[in-house]
Amino acid sequence: MTPLSQTPRADLLITGLWLLPTARHQDAIAGGGVAVAGDRIIAIGEADELAKRYPQAKRLHEEHGLIMPGLVNTHTHAPMACFRGLADDLPLMTWLQEHIFPAEAKLTPEIVYHSTLLSLAEMIKSGTTSFCDMYLFAKEVARATEESGMRAWIGEVLYDFPSPNYGELENGFTYVDEMFTLYQDHPLITITVDPHAVYTCSPALLQRLGELAHDHNCPYVIHLSENAAEVATCRERYGCTPVQHLDRLGLLDERTLAVHCVILDDQEIETLAARKVKVAHCPESNMKLASGAAPAVQMLKAGITLGLGTDGSASNNDVDMFGEMNTAAKLHKVIHMDPTAMNAETTLHAATLGGAACLHAASDIGTLAVGKKADIIVLDLNQPHLTPLYNIPSHLVYAARGADVIHSIINGRQVMHNRKLLTLDEEAILARMGEISRGILTARNR
Amino acid sequence: MTPLSQTPRADLLITGLWLLPTARHQDAIAGGGVAVAGDRIIAIGEADELAKRYPQAKRLHEEHGLIMPGLVNTHTHAPMACFRGLADDLPLMTWLQEHIFPAEAKLTPEIVYHSTLLSLAEMIKSGTTSFCDMYLFAKEVARATEESGMRAWIGEVLYDFPSPNYGELENGFTYVDEMFTLYQDHPLITITVDPHAVYTCSPALLQRLGELAHDHNCPYVIHLSENAAEVATCRERYGCTPVQHLDRLGLLDERTLAVHCVILDDQEIETLAARKVKVAHCPESNMKLASGAAPAVQMLKAGITLGLGTDGSASNNDVDMFGEMNTAAKLHKVIHMDPTAMNAETTLHAATLGGAACLHAASDIGTLAVGKKADIIVLDLNQPHLTPLYNIPSHLVYAARGADVIHSIINGRQVMHNRKLLTLDEEAILARMGEISRGILTARNR
Repeated sequence: MTPLSQTPRADLLITGLWLLPTARHQDAIAGGGVAVAGDRIIAIGEADELAKRYPQAKRLHEEHGLIMPGLVNTHTHAPMACFRGLADDLPLMTWLQEHIFPAEAKLTPEIVYHSTLLSLAEMIKSGTTSFCDMYLFAKEVARATEESGMRAWIGEVLYDFPSPNYGELENGFTYVDEMFTLYQDHPLITITVDPHAVYTCSPALLQRLGELAHDHNCPYVIHLSENAAEVATCRERYGCTPVQHLDRLGLLDERTLAVHCVILDDQEIETLAARKVKVAHCPESNMKLASGAAPAVQMLKAGITLGLGTDGSASNNDVDMFGEMNTAAKLHKVIHMDPTAMNAETTLHAATLGGAACLHAASDIGTLAVGKKADIIVLDLNQPHLTPLYNIPSHLVYAARGADVIHSIINGRQVMHNRKLLTLDEEAILARMGEISRGILTARNR
Repeated sequence: MTPLSQTPRADLLITGLWLLPTARHQDAIAGGGVAVAGDRIIAIGEADELAKRYPQAKRLHEEHGLIMPGLVNTHTHAPMACFRGLADDLPLMTWLQEHIFPAEAKLTPEIVYHSTLLSLAEMIKSGTTSFCDMYLFAKEVARATEESGMRAWIGEVLYDFPSPNYGELENGFTYVDEMFTLYQDHPLITITVDPHAVYTCSPALLQRLGELAHDHNCPYVIHLSENAAEVATCRERYGCTPVQHLDRLGLLDERTLAVHCVILDDQEIETLAARKVKVAHCPESNMKLASGAAPAVQMLKAGITLGLGTDGSASNNDVDMFGEMNTAAKLHKVIHMDPTAMNAETTLHAATLGGAACLHAASDIGTLAVGKKADIIVLDLNQPHLTPLYNIPSHLVYAARGADVIHSIINGRQVMHNRKLLTLDEEAILARMGEISRGILTARNR
């Protein structure tokens, strides 16, 4: 039993069959529970003890429930849900230039808002409580996210060419400034600075955004070394790799969240580690787009803070972190021809505390501990594919599915109960997306 | 609309939002349905037309339903569900020799029966309607399968050393003979002949079993070229690869269902194709055990009939064919560094008609067509992760999950309705497995 907090009463007491407060099986507590007051966890321990200490708390008891930290998705493009399955199994350039870019050119704030709602619904329903998003019309992403009650790091993507959102680049800076003002001191939403990549942003733009991230002391999120073509382009243009390029520009530091990092040599891994760069590893997207298998095992060995990300639904095709964990653990085993590579606990850590650390939020989320924010999910273990139970992290990585999550609490507020969303109108979101997708098809076939 | 059958009335009419009778998106029928009489499909077409033709049929209408063929799992060890997650992330030999073999040595018919029930529940709940199983105490596997109403190909595994089931090898032949007698002309269960592998079966045993399969004209199911160690052992012992070894013994023919086939050179692929050998491809097991990535794309190109299999829950850790499809499609893209490799339709075909062909059942199952057996599943498309919908096979391979399957009909009999199992007592199965797993742990810790 953790020490009594100063807080005299709990608002909510969540109890179940098992409590897994971290990514380690040895930390699991049979018949454990979590007491929440306001947005924070005030106690963790055995359910009976907690019930005695907090008799007036609202009870959420799940007989077969596994209580665990909500998952942290370190890389999404939430509004791309409207393109899910629009164009699959295509060469990368055909996919981008003939399908995604033309579709994105026709995006509106309204489509982005509704597509984000769809991803939010999907994320909550598959156990994610926090995510880091990079996309266009990011104010709409933030507006939808606020409604959902999810915790998020949100950035407007910037690049040298005009944007379907803000038009000329200079307006992009104004847009981002406005976002910083809008979400100053927001309890759940943090604004990030998001240069798209080294091949779409000039050195001057990358640096100016670096200064902006420095001024706001926020994550600097950039796609980095996603595939061989990016590296080749960078070498041609700057005579060095994307990692070297950013390093020469002084843009690799503890605020940098580098997404993908598929094509890296040992020296670059050392550089990323030395600069304390964080990495968002997106194995399913990298596999589906045939970018490669990121050296996640080597990065972890070098001490790099690594999170998992789903990327957008156009290249995954979901935002389900349970699927991502399953794939990550299996991919690295076969790539290294070593069944001990990327074990279940390591993978679960990347999807929880590792992701939190990527977002400088490890003191607030990623594990369940007294004083931390109450971002909690409950899974139903009483199902054939989760029976029998010998090892909880193994189950979570190799057998569990997003649909096993039945309750979700974010920042102390319950956002899903028995798979019913409490903050979002799921039926309305699905219906609206039907209309939007018909519009996307009509526009494409014109 | 397909031609009117001779049958004047249907027993069951299944209708929904979409009907996908094959693995091809172009074959999808909006507002389509299937009429079933007895164990067979008697009509396919638009729901309104079918409803007029068969007014007395029982209706199963799902407003947001996708009606499609049940999935065919070409390789399972269903009773291994009791070992799910017992020992993960270990070197192969540690896993086998220190965990799986000792646990298997303590198996009883009763454990096998109940573990099979668990896998059956999981398979039905994730859209599988047929499977091909190889394990010990196979009469128990068959007994449980009969209760479930699933379609199955079931074999008792044989090898040179004494078995925890039948003891001395000679008794194994008696046991298999008895199984053939028990299930002669069974509408759903076919007995197969299952030598374990070339490194566990002498050439004489392999050949004697080949004759048995020939006599019964049934599949000859064998693990083949699963990993480098198997190939090295075979080379050392026989001076050739496992494929060459079976070929020299005259055991590669159209009845052979070769499982895994991870380590193959071009010549061996040609040999398998020339001999019309069928292949059960188990990518998740091969990844998790770090065996490698089977050359599935090359095998398909060579014209080999390929099915997908989950392998047992000790090495996957589930028997969910939706997860297997997702992994297969992504794995081959990254292995070939080609996003067009193993596209959604090819993958879905392997999980349906390809699997059926592996089991010589392509004329009966694998697609929905007039005259075929009624093995049908219905998915609920009205969910965030399946919205919007542009391409059905893409959704099934890249976004759908086993839990999206709400109804299942096997051989014309409904075995699941709104995710409730109709032939099995799910609660009792889960409870019994809890007891069995405690026994397994106690025995291990002794």
